[in-house]
Amino acid sequence: MSFQTLADALEGHAAADADAIRAFLAASHAADIAQFLKDYEAQIDWRVLDFLDITKQAEVLGYLDRGEQVALARSAPRSRLAAVVTEMDADERADLFNALTEDEQEALLPALAQAEREDIRRLASYKDGTAGAIMTSDYAVLSPKLSARQALDTLRREAPDKETIYRAYIVDADRKLLGSVRLPQLILAAPDTPIENIMERETGAVRVDEDQESVARKIARYDVIALPVVDAEERIVGIVTHDDALDVITEEVTEDIHKSGSVGQLAESVGRASIVMLYRARVFWLVLLVFGNIFSGAGIAHFEDVISAHMPLLFFLPLLIASGGNAGSQASTLTVRAMATGEVHLGHWGRMLGREAMVAGFLGATMAIAIYGIGLWRGGADIALVVALAMILIVLAGSLIGLTLPFVLIRIGFDPATASGPLVTSIADIAGVLIYFGIAQAFLL
Amino acid sequence: MSFQTLADALEGHAAADADAIRAFLAASHAADIAQFLKDYEAQIDWRVLDFLDITKQAEVLGYLDRGEQVALARSAPRSRLAAVVTEMDADERADLFNALTEDEQEALLPALAQAEREDIRRLASYKDGTAGAIMTSDYAVLSPKLSARQALDTLRREAPDKETIYRAYIVDADRKLLGSVRLPQLILAAPDTPIENIMERETGAVRVDEDQESVARKIARYDVIALPVVDAEERIVGIVTHDDALDVITEEVTEDIHKSGSVGQLAESVGRASIVMLYRARVFWLVLLVFGNIFSGAGIAHFEDVISAHMPLLFFLPLLIASGGNAGSQASTLTVRAMATGEVHLGHWGRMLGREAMVAGFLGATMAIAIYGIGLWRGGADIALVVALAMILIVLAGSLIGLTLPFVLIRIGFDPATASGPLVTSIADIAGVLIYFGIAQAFLL
Repeated sequence: MSFQTLADALEGHAAADADAIRAFLAASHAADIAQFLKDYEAQIDWRVLDFLDITKQAEVLGYLDRGEQVALARSAPRSRLAAVVTEMDADERADLFNALTEDEQEALLPALAQAEREDIRRLASYKDGTAGAIMTSDYAVLSPKLSARQALDTLRREAPDKETIYRAYIVDADRKLLGSVRLPQLILAAPDTPIENIMERETGAVRVDEDQESVARKIARYDVIALPVVDAEERIVGIVTHDDALDVITEEVTEDIHKSGSVGQLAESVGRASIVMLYRARVFWLVLLVFGNIFSGAGIAHFEDVISAHMPLLFFLPLLIASGGNAGSQASTLTVRAMATGEVHLGHWGRMLGREAMVAGFLGATMAIAIYGIGLWRGGADIALVVALAMILIVLAGSLIGLTLPFVLIRIGFDPATASGPLVTSIADIAGVLIYFGIAQAFLL
Repeated sequence: MSFQTLADALEGHAAADADAIRAFLAASHAADIAQFLKDYEAQIDWRVLDFLDITKQAEVLGYLDRGEQVALARSAPRSRLAAVVTEMDADERADLFNALTEDEQEALLPALAQAEREDIRRLASYKDGTAGAIMTSDYAVLSPKLSARQALDTLRREAPDKETIYRAYIVDADRKLLGSVRLPQLILAAPDTPIENIMERETGAVRVDEDQESVARKIARYDVIALPVVDAEERIVGIVTHDDALDVITEEVTEDIHKSGSVGQLAESVGRASIVMLYRARVFWLVLLVFGNIFSGAGIAHFEDVISAHMPLLFFLPLLIASGGNAGSQASTLTVRAMATGEVHLGHWGRMLGREAMVAGFLGATMAIAIYGIGLWRGGADIALVVALAMILIVLAGSLIGLTLPFVLIRIGFDPATASGPLVTSIADIAGVLIYFGIAQAFLL
C-alpha cells in the first residue's frame, strides 16, 4: 500500500481493501496524510478520515490549511464535527472556530462540552497576530508548595490532555506566574524536595498582546520549546510552542520575500488565492512604478538632442541603467535581510555606507573595463569613454541608493522590506538616465 | 545594572563592582550576554566571560558566531580553552573544532579528556551540509528489555549530560534503532511495564548523509523536538534538534533571498564579510547580466530607423520595459517562494500558467489604460495606441517568463531561486524592446 495506490482505490481504479487502507493510514504520519489530502485536492472529504480513529482525524485536521479545514467542517454533520473538534489541539481548534461564520459557530458550540466551549471562546477572543492568537491552553501548572513527588503525581493525572508537559509552570493561588520546572529536573530531584527549591525563576514570559513575530523570534533566540504567555496581571493564560513559532517565522519570511518582489499581502497561499486576490496584490506596485518610470522617460526626452546626434548611445542605454538597478537590488537585498535577522540596525548606516562605496567602486570599475571594449567597437573612443565613466558612477549610485533606501524606510516608520527590487530599480533607473546622458552631453555636445 | 552600565564599566567610564556584575550576568540569559558581546564587538574577550561560571561561559560561547568563537579560542590559554570547550554542547564543540587550523586542533586535543576527544573526532568527520554535520551526540539510549522504572533510573543517571532527554531512543545490542519513548510516557506507565510495550516504533530516522535542509524541513513538518540520525546499518549516531533545524532554515532562507537579489554565496554574514568577499559574491551576476542587456541594446539599435523618425517613442521606453520586468519579478517571486515552501511542484506548471495568463492579462489591461492617456498627451493617437498595445503584451510576456523560468531551472537541475529579479528583468527587457519597437514599426513606418 502507498498513497498512490490509495488514490487509485479512492478513484475507483483499483480494488480497495478497507482493512489494508486502515492499517496503512494507521502507520502513516498525520502530516503525510494531510499532505496527501492536499495533493488530491478534489478529494478532501471525510472518506479518507473515516478510516482513522477520532484522535488521528483531529491530528490530520490540524495539519491542513485553514481553508481546507473550513471546507471539511462545512461538509460534516454537527455531532461528527463536534467529536473531532473536541480532540483537536486547543489553539488549532480556536483558529478553526474563528474561521467559521457566526451562524456556523452558533451551530457548533452547543454540541461541545462546557470546558471546550469556554476554552474556544477565550482563545478566539485574542487579536490576530498577537501571542494570544497563536498560544494554546494545553499546558500544565503546579503549585510551588508541592514536593517533586506530588508534582509528578499531578502531572501523571493531567498529562494526557496537555500538548507539552516537558515544562510545567509554577503559579500562585491567583495563577500569577512564579517560574517553571522541566520534567527531567523533577525526575532527578529527591522525591520530597519542594518545587520552590528547584524551579527556574526566569520565566521569559511574553504578554498576551505581544506581536506574534516578536514571540517567535524569542523562541528561536533562546532555543526553547515553549514560552509562557501572561496577561496584564502576570497571570499565565497560555503557552506558545516551538512548532507554532516556526510557522509564524515561515509566514513572515514569505511576506518579506513577496515584498522584495513588489507583491502585496496575500491572505491565501499562491495556489489557493483567486485571480482577483492575485491581481489586487500586484496591481498597486505595478501602477505606482509606472509613475516612477515616467521620470526616466522625461529624463530621456530631455536629452533628445544629444541622443539624436549620437544614436549609438542608445545601444548602451539598457545595459547601463540595468547595471545600476542590479547593483542596487543586490545592495538592498543584503541590507534588508541583515535587518530581518537582526544583524544590522539603524545605527549601522554610516559604517555600511563606507563599505558599500568601496565594494561598489570595485564593481563599477570591473564593469567599466568590460564595457569600454564594447564601447570602442560600437561607437568609437569618445563613446567608449562616456560609457565607461557612466558605468562606474551608475553602479556606485545604484548601490548607495539600494543600501540607503531600507534605512530611510525604517526611519520614516515603514517596513524596510518595502525596498523591493523593482522599487530600487526604478529609482536607480532615473539616476542612471541622468548620469549617462548628462556625461554624454558634457563630453559629446 | 544593565548591559549599558556594564559596557560603561568595561570601558572604564563607570565604577565597576565585580559582585554586582557577577550577579547581573548570572541572572541574564546566555543568548542576551552573547548579543551584548556581539554589539560591543571590540570587546569580545575573556573579561566578560570571567564573571561567569564555566557552564555559562560554554553556553554564551555556543550563542556566538563561528568567527567570534574562533577569535575567543585563539586568545585563551590552552587549559582554559579546554575547560570551556569540554562544557559546550557536543555539536557546537565539533563545529568550533572544525573552524580551527590544523595546528590549533593538534594543540587543543591533548588538553581534552579521552571521551571528548573521540566525540569531537567523530562529529567533525561528517560532511558540511549533511545531517551528520548538525547533529549532536547528546542523546539518551535505552535497551528495550528495561522496565519503565529501570528506564527512568537510567535516565536519572545520564540526564545531566544530555541535551535533550525528553525523548529516549531504544536500541538493540548493536545500537540499531528500534524506536523511541517520550519521557511523559515513561512517567505515566506502570513502573514494571516493559519499554517494548510502550515505545513508538515509527522513528522518523534520517540518514547521516541526508541534506541538512531536508532534515530541518522534516522537523518542521512533523512538529517534533528532535529526529534521530542513523548510519547505513540503521545504528543511531546522533540526533538533530529543533533549534538547529530553525538555524538551518534561517540560513537557507537567507541564501534564497540573496539569490533572489542576484547575490552569490557569502560564507560570512554581511556585517562580518570582507570587501573582497562581498565583491566576489556580486560581480559574477552583474557582469553576466551586462551581456544579457547587450541583446536589449542590439534590439534598440536594430530599430534605429523607427526611433529616429519618432523620437517621442523613447519617452515610453523605460516605462514599458520596466513594467515587463516588474510583472516578471512578481511572478517569479511568488513561484519561487511557493516552491520553497513545498506548495508548488514541477507538475503544477500548466495550471499555474493558465492562472498567470489571466492575472497578467488583467494587469496589462489596467496599465494600458493608465498609459494610453499619457501616450495621447506626449505623442498623439498613433503613439498612444502603440504604447497601450505594447503594454498589454509586455506585461503578459514578462509575467509568463517570470512564472516559467523557475520551472525551467528545476527541470535542468538548477535551484529555482536562481530565477532572481535581475535575471528575470533582463530577459523581460529583451522581450520588451522587441515587442515595443516591433509594434511601433508595424504601425508607424
